[in-house]
Amino acid sequence: MATALDTKASLPADLKAEAVALFERLAAQSADGVGITRASYGESETLAMKTVAEAAVACGLEVESDAAANMTVTLPGTEAGAPAVACGSHLDSVPRGGNYDGAAGVIAGLMALMRAKREGAKPRRPLKLFILRGEESAWFGRAYMGSSALFGTLDPKDLGLKHRDSGRTLRDYMAEAGAEVEVVAAGKAMITPADLACFFELHIEQGPVMVARAVPVGLVTGIRGNIRHPSVICRGEAAHAGAVPRWLRHDAVFAFADLVERLDQHWVSLLEQGEDLVITMGIVGTDPAEHAMSRVPGEIHFSLEYRSQSSDMLRFFGGIVAEEMLNVGRSRGVSFELGQALPTAPARTHPALVDHLAHVCGEAAIPYERLPSGAGHDAAVFANAGIPTAMIFVRNEHGSHNPHEAMAYDDFFLGAEALYRAMLTAPEALP
Amino acid sequence: MATALDTKASLPADLKAEAVALFERLAAQSADGVGITRASYGESETLAMKTVAEAAVACGLEVESDAAANMTVTLPGTEAGAPAVACGSHLDSVPRGGNYDGAAGVIAGLMALMRAKREGAKPRRPLKLFILRGEESAWFGRAYMGSSALFGTLDPKDLGLKHRDSGRTLRDYMAEAGAEVEVVAAGKAMITPADLACFFELHIEQGPVMVARAVPVGLVTGIRGNIRHPSVICRGEAAHAGAVPRWLRHDAVFAFADLVERLDQHWVSLLEQGEDLVITMGIVGTDPAEHAMSRVPGEIHFSLEYRSQSSDMLRFFGGIVAEEMLNVGRSRGVSFELGQALPTAPARTHPALVDHLAHVCGEAAIPYERLPSGAGHDAAVFANAGIPTAMIFVRNEHGSHNPHEAMAYDDFFLGAEALYRAMLTAPEALP
Repeated sequence: MATALDTKASLPADLKAEAVALFERLAAQSADGVGITRASYGESETLAMKTVAEAAVACGLEVESDAAANMTVTLPGTEAGAPAVACGSHLDSVPRGGNYDGAAGVIAGLMALMRAKREGAKPRRPLKLFILRGEESAWFGRAYMGSSALFGTLDPKDLGLKHRDSGRTLRDYMAEAGAEVEVVAAGKAMITPADLACFFELHIEQGPVMVARAVPVGLVTGIRGNIRHPSVICRGEAAHAGAVPRWLRHDAVFAFADLVERLDQHWVSLLEQGEDLVITMGIVGTDPAEHAMSRVPGEIHFSLEYRSQSSDMLRFFGGIVAEEMLNVGRSRGVSFELGQALPTAPARTHPALVDHLAHVCGEAAIPYERLPSGAGHDAAVFANAGIPTAMIFVRNEHGSHNPHEAMAYDDFFLGAEALYRAMLTAPEALP
Repeated sequence: MATALDTKASLPADLKAEAVALFERLAAQSADGVGITRASYGESETLAMKTVAEAAVACGLEVESDAAANMTVTLPGTEAGAPAVACGSHLDSVPRGGNYDGAAGVIAGLMALMRAKREGAKPRRPLKLFILRGEESAWFGRAYMGSSALFGTLDPKDLGLKHRDSGRTLRDYMAEAGAEVEVVAAGKAMITPADLACFFELHIEQGPVMVARAVPVGLVTGIRGNIRHPSVICRGEAAHAGAVPRWLRHDAVFAFADLVERLDQHWVSLLEQGEDLVITMGIVGTDPAEHAMSRVPGEIHFSLEYRSQSSDMLRFFGGIVAEEMLNVGRSRGVSFELGQALPTAPARTHPALVDHLAHVCGEAAIPYERLPSGAGHDAAVFANAGIPTAMIFVRNEHGSHNPHEAMAYDDFFLGAEALYRAMLTAPEALP
């Protein structure tokens, strides 16, 4: 019988077939005609959880629900009360999304526990899979609802958030999905950090880096935090487009372009210095009630988001933004108003745990690269709760949150192999 | 009795009072609660024309209507059949516009003819004021309707243009205003270029140059033509804002900003070389159906307009635009689509006639500067018909097409003085 540390070992063929069958069952259950829809705390999410739980029970694993209607699958350890080596991800999707965002991590975790169970592994510490609910913000405007509730950090006010389609509250949906809403509302943690030795999340990559680098597995160095300004305004002065010469213009669009170019130059220079940063102005527009082809634009609105793994970089770049807004304002006679700022702190993965992943990948000859995660993940909630956390990315084409997600099963099996090995040989102590 | 060439002469006090009273009557008639509304070929325009015509008739001047329902006021000359020394402007306004855009030129012309009549001037050639209709494009999407019809150049198809509010056709409105629509539709010219020796239009400046330069009177060196692209598209690739690093982005907004900055640099350099150019991107926007704060923008739409007095410069700058679009496309992995191009040719003012205006301003100690007209004017229609044409601008604050137009009557009187002198002493022959 192969052991976890046998370099030749990989997921047995029958488990591979079971994983594929499970992906296909989920896809068939949640097909919406265009893509995949598993609504957070909705019936389609509940159905998917049942499907996964049934497979776990059939294999003889223990399945439980918590007060937030998340599920855990457990392979008990030999030592009573030892903290669990855990993994997990979510089962919900965005509307018309893809089949792998979230589900890949759940199925990889299930395969790890099933494989350990079938191979008769007797780990000292329990192995635990968290099947989380409500990770996508698309439904209630709030992400990580299931994992936040798990740690008692879901703001009770968030229970009043309205569903994008029905307008009914998160509280209603949670109750219907079987959660004990009063426990959630009380902010009572359902586990303590001491219950878990560490946490792994496998997830498809949501960007194009691994495809571009031709590498199937990624080890996440950190989860980018961000600062978001949903509605920045640049105010100049509207004027007749033909009658006002350049020296008398206060053109909001030229000023905006000037600012973007300056920020782009800083971006390039910061990347060259090895800093982690992405900048996006996803929403841009002059005012349809005012603008005209032959009118110097007096105002332009835009969103500004910048992300980095480093809180210091977010602060530093915020300073650059403010400074360049003043510079452009002075040179072009306009003013900028940043408006509301929505900050999300970066989450750190645990360096020794990431090194452990690198070690098992090396052992099993799994090609990998280290890269940051630009998107947020449930793993960030575990990390911010103080649990040593690491993430495995699986190569995926066409991004996520759309029906065209394209993860090759062979890549998935490599990621699942890394997860299995990492859990079975997780370090006894972490610095 | 003062003559036209007496350097001390200026509009007599009673005529000044009459001019002010006429402005005030027009304002009272066409007040809309916010600004001034005199709709092209609408009742409010007709009422304004009657008001001006009554004042002309009361002074003993001849008033006639033409087949496009424009009016002419004439002081006959002593020589039968001599070509007229003409002036004119329009009486319509944009919705919620100001009282001076158009009307200033009509009232200045009327004052010139009334003054000549009262002072017993006996010019060899008739003096003629054109009170034009339908100059503003705000109502039917077509500018210069009255003056174009006068020269038989209003496209018969334009008679089918729909009114912005009622949806009824220009044909209907013209007929109701008393025009002979079949004559207009036949493209029959109502005058020939040989009927006019020259044409002057006094108009408020629609830009801020004269206020900035502290000069009350401007002599127009030329009327800028333009090239307009109502809907340019920059196509990149939408992606996850957190998960895609800079080197893999095809961000349409950064590409747009890059293009704008490049065009701005060319603009500065061309101005330094003495060229005439203004550039405007008045309408800019990402797609509300697709864009999001945390999504790399895959597309941005914008309008592009550039104006110059020189056709060569318009052509040259068109080449720069195309080249820089290719450059940005190559460096950022995006593509630009210019879409429809709407060209309007520049109109030349007659250099000797502009010099004549400069001469009379000098004689009467009227401070003036030469400057281009960025906006289009009826004068361009006369110029393009082959009639020697010149324009007088009067200083005006806050631009035009809004209720805040602010022309000081003292500035108007200086402009009217220049017009009167220029008409009475118009050159017998022009090169």
